[in-house]
This record gives sequence, C-alpha cells and structure tokens, in this order.
Amino acid sequence: MNARRDITIELSRDGKQPIFLDIVASIVREIERGRLKPGEALPGTRALARSLKVHRNTVDAAYHELTMQGWLVAEPSRGTFVARDLPDLRPANDADRKSAPANAVRTEMRAPSPLRVTDGAPDSRLMPRSELGRAFRRALLGPAFLSDTGYGDPRGALSLREALSDYLESERGLIAPPSDLLVTRGSQMGLFLAASAVIEPGEAIAVEDPGYPLAWAAFRAAGAKVIGVPVDGQGIDVSRLASIADREPRLRAIYVTPHHQYPTTVTLGAGRRLKLLDIARYRSLTIIEDDYDHEYRFDGRPVLPLAVRAEVELPVIYIGSLSKLLAPAVRVGYVTARSDILARMVDRREAIDRQGDLPLEQALAGLIEDGALRRHARKARRIYQARRDHLAERLISRLGSEVTFETPAGGLALWISLRSGLSAETWAFNAHRAGLAVTPGLRFALDASRAPEAFRVGYASLDQSELSRLVDLLSRTRPD
Amino acid sequence: MNARRDITIELSRDGKQPIFLDIVASIVREIERGRLKPGEALPGTRALARSLKVHRNTVDAAYHELTMQGWLVAEPSRGTFVARDLPDLRPANDADRKSAPANAVRTEMRAPSPLRVTDGAPDSRLMPRSELGRAFRRALLGPAFLSDTGYGDPRGALSLREALSDYLESERGLIAPPSDLLVTRGSQMGLFLAASAVIEPGEAIAVEDPGYPLAWAAFRAAGAKVIGVPVDGQGIDVSRLASIADREPRLRAIYVTPHHQYPTTVTLGAGRRLKLLDIARYRSLTIIEDDYDHEYRFDGRPVLPLAVRAEVELPVIYIGSLSKLLAPAVRVGYVTARSDILARMVDRREAIDRQGDLPLEQALAGLIEDGALRRHARKARRIYQARRDHLAERLISRLGSEVTFETPAGGLALWISLRSGLSAETWAFNAHRAGLAVTPGLRFALDASRAPEAFRVGYASLDQSELSRLVDLLSRTRPD
Repeated sequence: MNARRDITIELSRDGKQPIFLDIVASIVREIERGRLKPGEALPGTRALARSLKVHRNTVDAAYHELTMQGWLVAEPSRGTFVARDLPDLRPANDADRKSAPANAVRTEMRAPSPLRVTDGAPDSRLMPRSELGRAFRRALLGPAFLSDTGYGDPRGALSLREALSDYLESERGLIAPPSDLLVTRGSQMGLFLAASAVIEPGEAIAVEDPGYPLAWAAFRAAGAKVIGVPVDGQGIDVSRLASIADREPRLRAIYVTPHHQYPTTVTLGAGRRLKLLDIARYRSLTIIEDDYDHEYRFDGRPVLPLAVRAEVELPVIYIGSLSKLLAPAVRVGYVTARSDILARMVDRREAIDRQGDLPLEQALAGLIEDGALRRHARKARRIYQARRDHLAERLISRLGSEVTFETPAGGLALWISLRSGLSAETWAFNAHRAGLAVTPGLRFALDASRAPEAFRVGYASLDQSELSRLVDLLSRTRPD
Repeated sequence: MNARRDITIELSRDGKQPIFLDIVASIVREIERGRLKPGEALPGTRALARSLKVHRNTVDAAYHELTMQGWLVAEPSRGTFVARDLPDLRPANDADRKSAPANAVRTEMRAPSPLRVTDGAPDSRLMPRSELGRAFRRALLGPAFLSDTGYGDPRGALSLREALSDYLESERGLIAPPSDLLVTRGSQMGLFLAASAVIEPGEAIAVEDPGYPLAWAAFRAAGAKVIGVPVDGQGIDVSRLASIADREPRLRAIYVTPHHQYPTTVTLGAGRRLKLLDIARYRSLTIIEDDYDHEYRFDGRPVLPLAVRAEVELPVIYIGSLSKLLAPAVRVGYVTARSDILARMVDRREAIDRQGDLPLEQALAGLIEDGALRRHARKARRIYQARRDHLAERLISRLGSEVTFETPAGGLALWISLRSGLSAETWAFNAHRAGLAVTPGLRFALDASRAPEAFRVGYASLDQSELSRLVDLLSRTRPD
C-alpha cells in the first residue's frame, strides 16, 4: 500500500487555468482512480517540479491547495502523503458511491476562483436560448426530421449545409456549395480530420508558436510531428516558415489563424498572406486555416479568408465554428476544402463518428435561415466591442506602466504583454489566490524557452463590472 | 476532356443498400466533383466488375440505372459515357448552383425504393419527440446550463453520467461510477477511441466475421489490422480465436457483440463467454464489448454484459448507445472501462472532439431521470416484439421452404438464411427493382469467400403492414 510508485501528472494543454491547478486536478484524478492510494507518499516538490519543468513554487502551491482541501497530509520532515481518511472512493455496490468526490472537488476548486477569465469564449448569458430551444423543437416535430431519422450523411444535415453555404458566401465571400461542406462537432474535430487527411503518421505540420495547444493535440492524435514557427507583431513569420520547409522534407501542412492569431490576436497582413500562399504552393504544403471567430470584427471589414484567395489547385482546408457565436458547449463547426481532401475527411469522419446530431443540425439551420443567428451576431458584436474598449481603457488607466497591448481589430480576447522583468506565471499565481483565474503566456508556447511574458484575456464572457474587477484584481496582485 | 482516366468507385461499407446502388452513388459523386467530366468514357462493365470484385450484372444494373437517370449515355458498340447535357455542376458564382443535382439524385434514388429495410434501426416514428423537445428546452433555459456553458468535461455532462450510472446499474447490473463513464457521440466514436487506446498502429484486433463493417472502419482508422474470426450458430468461434491469438503475436484486442451478434443475432452462450474471458486473460487481450441494443430483449431476461463478469484486472471496454433507444440521428453513446484505459480514451476524445454537446446531454439526462426513457423502452419493446413475431409468422407461411431463421431472443433484426442454391445478392437485386431495399449477407463479410447467403432484415422500423409487404415483395422476387 505504501510503496512509492511513479505518479502520472498530466498537465492539460489547453491553457484554461494556472499550471498549479492542473497539478491539483491531476493528483485528485490519480487518487480518485486509485492509482494513488491512501497513505501513499507523493514525490518531493523539487523532483516533481523538475520532471514537469515548472517552478518549484508551482508544485508547492499545488500541494498546499490539496492539503487545504484534505486530499493530502504534510508530515514534517517525512514528506507529503495521500490522506488516510478519504471517503471510500469506489465501493463496489454502495448507494453512496455517487457522493462523487470528483464533483465535490470541482466545486471546491471553483470556489477560490469566482472570476474566471477565458481564452476568448463568448458570453453564454447572451446566447439566444429561447430561439435555439424553439428551433430544436421545430426540428424534432417537423416533417423533415420524421422522414429522415435513419442514419444520415456523414457530411451533416443537408439543410444546415445549405444554410451555411449561403451564410459563408454572403458573410465571407467564400463559395462552398453544400456538397463541399462538412459539418463537424466544433472545430476540434475539423482540426483532427484535416490533419488525418493530409498527413501520414511521422510527417510534420508547422504551427504558430505561440499558438493553440488543443490544435497541436489534434495533430499529434493524427500522428503528426508538430513544428513551431515564431509569431511576431505581424503574425506568423513566413520567412522562418520558408526556411523550416527547406530543411524539413516531411513537412506537409501549415496551420494558421490568420484572421486573429491565437493567442496574440494579430491579423496577418496582406504581404505575408501572399507570401504564405506562395510558400505553400512552391513547397506543396496544405494550409489549414482556422477562422474561429470571423464574425467578431469591430474595426473595418473582416479580412477575407486565405481560402478565398487561394486558387483551386492550392489546397486550403478552411475551418470555421458556430460555437463562438452561440456557446462553447453548443458544438458545431464546419470545413470546406478541395473535394479530394474533403472526401478523405468525410471518410474518416464516418469511421470515427458516423455522422452529426440531426436535430441539433436542423435546429441550427433554422436559426441561420430565419436570421436569428445574424441578429445575434450583430448584437453580440456591439456588446463585445464595448467590453473590449472598456477593458483597454481600464488597463491603460490602472496598469499603463506595467503592461502593453495592441487593441485588436476583432476577436474575443486581448493579448497583454508585461513590461520587462515581470513574470506572467508569478502574477497569474498571485491573481489566482486573490480569486482571479488568468492564463499566462507559457500555456500557449510550444517552445517553452520562448514563452512570452503575457496574458491572454478573453473579454467577451465578462460584463463591464466584471472587467473592472478583473483589472482591479490584476493591479492588486502585481508582483514586485 | 475525353481522355480515359481511372475512376474511383468507393463502395460504402455499411451494407445499407444493394451494391449496385453504391456504384450508382459513387459514379454520381465522381461526376459531381468533376472527376468524371461530360463526355468522358466509363470503364467497361467487365473490367469494372473485375476490379470491384462484383458480378458483372451488378455493374450492368448500375450503368442501366444511371442511364435511366440521365447521368450516362450508352452508345452502342462504343461504350458508356458521361452525358454531355448535364446541368453545370459547379458554376463559380451562380445563384443557381444550389439547384443541387446531389439532392435531385437522392430523391430519384429513393423513388424506386419505397420500402427501405434497415439493418436494425429503431422506428423513429415512435421516438418521444415532444418529450425530447421539452427536455432540450428545459436544459437550455435551466440554471445548470447557464452556469456551465464554458468548455466542459470531455467525459460529458456530469448530469448525464450520473443518470447513466444509475441506469446501467439498475438495468444491467453494471457498476460504473460517473467518473468512470465517457459519453461519446454514438457508439461509433466509442469504437474508434477504444481501438486508439489499446492498439498501436500496425497491431491487430480480432473481429467477428460476419460482423459490423463500420466497426472495422473505426479500427482501421486507428491504425489497426482487422482479423476475422468465424461465427457459427452459437456466436463467435472461441477456439478459432484462440488459435488466431497463438499465431498472431501482435493481436491486442477482440471486438465482440455478445448480446445479439451483429449481424446473425445469436446470443453468445455462457460456456463461450467464460472461454472468451479466459482467452483474453491468458493472452492479455482487451475485450471491446459492443452492447448496442441491450434494451431489446423479448424472451427471458437480458444476459448480463461480459463487463459485469470480468474481474477488475481484465480489461473489458464496454460500449453502449442511446441511439437505438431514440433514433439513429440522435447521437449519444457511452463507454466504461478500466480507469487507465478510460483515461487514454478521454485524452484522445479531447484531442479529436474536445467534448460533447451540453444541451443535448443535459436533455437526455432529464429524459432518463424523469423515467421517460424507460417508459419509451417498455413501449418500444412491446411493439418491436409484435413486429418480430409478425415477420417470423409471415416468413414461415410465405417462404418456409426458401428460408430458415432462428427467432432471435432480442434485438431489432432477423437473420434470414437462404436454402442452398439461392443467391442472396441476386435476390436482393431483384427485390430492389421491385421496390424493396434489402441487405445481402455479403455486405457483412470480412472474408468475401465465406459470405453467407442470408439477409439481415431490421423489423423494428417497419410496421406490420409494411412487414407484410416486405415478405410479399420477397416472395414475388425470389430467384429461380
């Protein structure tokens, strides 16, 4: 029972919370699953910090939190142990077994974090919930659903592909007939399918660094090697991409977020766009274009997707999402691509997921057709722009000498760089103890040695008073 | 324009329709995508039949159908060509481009097939649509949704995992705490994740033959080699499995449908179940148990899942589905497995799909909690049992000397074997021309040389008068 074994700490790669909370969650998981048993010793903080490549303070904080929550017991000069008086976690046949410690922890872990800063989620409170509910009911009770509830097209409901086709053409100048659209669950599945379609296991994809860790996870799940390309104030450094392509013969694709680079929010300029298309053409690379928050453009017109400019011969896989328009938990994305690539993606989709959820797809088609989605986008755009401006104004007035940022032309987040000497991780740690969960730049770095001292702060999901509190908490927790 | 190129005919592997209709659909797709151009020559029927390993008659039938529909033109002694007067399929910027030939074809292809026999789908007409609509609305408007619309747990909504945990324990004796459940989109994703979790690319999985082709597609998508194990009147031949395991060192898993074998509907007997568990234990194989229609047991009690009998040490990945209870287009499945395996599946799920759809998951949790799902299952069970008995009675009275079958103790389909000398494919072809789409045994065969002369006929989705018509059409189209 007490033998020291290695424990598995899996840091989630999505940058949603400070690292020490990841460690907390991971250790709780190990205990819940019985891989860490009551009374068992934990590794020393120094050793664990080394193996996780984090500050020792971070592990200290995690152990402290777990001790406060009663999962761990610190025994002076002996070390830290799993508490012996934990509830029996998995009794074989006990009605009480669902007094769910997982649940309890979730609540407790939320408690110290009343102000949760997302990486750019929309405000679910604004979601047109009644309209969606009605649309879903209409879809379920309508004749189309009744006549078509067998297994369906793995590309998604025809009604939704038709609605999206109109929407993309009128909103983005993107010509994609319904037969060339694939409706996915959220954009995450689109990323996985895209990589599966153009990359063989062992081949490589270039990505922006800093960038989107969940995309890297999708590419790795498809067997791809992920190579970082630096990002600067104009977006991805295309010259560096070219030289990486020169020395990496197995490079097959490049993943970009040109409209609002994730996480830095920069819009890729026209010159770099052309150069990127040139490089892709010359090196036979597929471009995977993730246009995750196209609708949210406040200053000037949205920039047209790369997919619009690319000639037919050049493979651009274009991925969009309705989740940023509605709520992250309403999972609908879409993809269009050259038809041979799309056909491979459709085959793979069928193999891993058969098809989408028909009632939901039909309900969303209804929301697009009757204009409810556009009306919601217009309203949300006004509100989010005001929130962006409010956050920018507060930051300048309260933290003008500690941080710098470019007000982004669109999107749902601000990228806040710290003045030299300030550590984003330390600041995030302090902020969390004060009740503010904010994500430091390290979480977006593929190459940790280049980790930017910055925060990504999603402003859309917080109202103006919450944003004021956010800046207030940041300024009160600034490290010395 | 007229150069002869190779065309790609992809036969769908799901056995939903006769092969010649697959060929029709595949050629239409090639034309729509512009890979077959107006005026272009098609391969000769003999050559295409050889390359597809089908009867030449099958290709003849497909060409005939396409000619009738206007896609192809037969020019005597010259060959068959893509028609020159097709509508312009993809004009660049034309408002008419959505007069969707794809759509038109779908309708036309349905026209000659008014009675569609599924492989065992539930009857969507019985689905509790109002209840589901209300539950969805309740979920959307309720406080739980409002407070939890950020990104969520990749295992699925806690409310649904709690409801499923109760349901599985009381209905199947399966103890799976909510933390050990993973809610997937339909069981298809469960199959892919299961293979991804226990099989490295290049390793092998054994499957039942005849069996479920979409499962093979999922395993292959995960990089697995698929090896068939014969099935007889008692289910999978476990002795053959043992000898395959002996000579295949890279075998890692075995996929089974023990409750109602797909497609033969046989329930795996107790002796073979124990032997299967023994083989898995001795050879360190993971058992992937697909219990896709557990609820539908008419005669006696449902047999407990293998997962219930397996000791903790033995890895059984148990996969179930709510889609057979509601409708194929409502996509919710679930998985439980040993926690280390489940953790790998959850990680992979996050990488390919992030999480499920929260409103839908909460709505289904509501349907389970308030008893609507159980009530629906009881009602559906009564109706489907009557349909099974009606079909069996009609078959015996009209085709008693042409076919044999064992009335299955449960499930949603009948496996109808033909007396020696009758070809299931020819019969299916005749039946289709008369307006009945029925699936011949070849479509479920991994090893085509062992293809059973049989039909799988889903009776649940047809009412009694439709079933009578089905038998009538079968008996009128019996080959000589």
